[in-house]
Amino acid sequence: MFDIRHYIRDIKDFPKPGIIYKDITPLLQDPVATRKTVAAFLTFLKAEKIDKVVGIESRGFFFATLLAQELDAGFVPVRKPGKLPHTTFGESYALEYGHDTLEIHCDAIEKGEKVLLHDDVLATGGTAAAACKLIEKLGGEIVQCNFLMDLDFLKGKKKISAYNVVSLVSY
Amino acid sequence: MFDIRHYIRDIKDFPKPGIIYKDITPLLQDPVATRKTVAAFLTFLKAEKIDKVVGIESRGFFFATLLAQELDAGFVPVRKPGKLPHTTFGESYALEYGHDTLEIHCDAIEKGEKVLLHDDVLATGGTAAAACKLIEKLGGEIVQCNFLMDLDFLKGKKKISAYNVVSLVSY
Repeated sequence: MFDIRHYIRDIKDFPKPGIIYKDITPLLQDPVATRKTVAAFLTFLKAEKIDKVVGIESRGFFFATLLAQELDAGFVPVRKPGKLPHTTFGESYALEYGHDTLEIHCDAIEKGEKVLLHDDVLATGGTAAAACKLIEKLGGEIVQCNFLMDLDFLKGKKKISAYNVVSLVSY
Repeated sequence: MFDIRHYIRDIKDFPKPGIIYKDITPLLQDPVATRKTVAAFLTFLKAEKIDKVVGIESRGFFFATLLAQELDAGFVPVRKPGKLPHTTFGESYALEYGHDTLEIHCDAIEKGEKVLLHDDVLATGGTAAAACKLIEKLGGEIVQCNFLMDLDFLKGKKKISAYNVVSLVSY
């Protein structure tokens, strides 16, 4: 039985003291585990036609590109401000202290397209919620938001409870 | 005949006046063109067993993850300072003004492993040369460095001429 937990390692005190960071590089380094992870995501998407897979910068890019190819869908990056070169929409969201912004190309999604949103970790849900707003601003229909893992104690699922949320593992 | 140029658009004056930026998001948005691009890269790698595909943050991640899966190889990210959580090696390289640094996890590549380095654009070659040094510091053997495109007037191929360099299109 494939257990993704074997490929996610804890890094203590990263990026700052008291935080246990979930490092997915052991997963990415293993092509068989990566393939099984993609397959695990696909089991939650059986009947759905997906037009675009949106990946959030930058650790969301890894599996979003793979999922897009498997689903025969386009890949769309959501990036930090100033990184996308063409006309963008932006959406700000609150951090513990201050705020941050995500951007999407205005021509990245057409009205009515079915969209899968992907990121590696669902934490407070602030980033995912901002990305959902950007997708909907372009007229995309969010079929599902999927994550390698969610940090249950941060209650991110609550913040995006309007959507179908899938997480392969909870911590 | 597949021409990757159709999927790369020019953005004038990005990120600053006088620069014509090559935007690959139209390519990523098209799953068929993305698949053909991966296939084009693979024709240059026919007989080679690749153990690891190294992608450079962050636009190098897109095709590096896809290539790694196709080659049944592990994917290894090379990132900007402070992003990789485990023990890293760093390598600095010169920019037009000042310098920048790239990092790799010390346990990302084992001695003797065959490595493919990928990035989206080969410009001056400074980034690619730094990534090559990191790979070799870990004992990896660089089989090939491949790029979606190279900016010929910046002579990046010269800087990494010790390696087998493949670029799908030159500007």
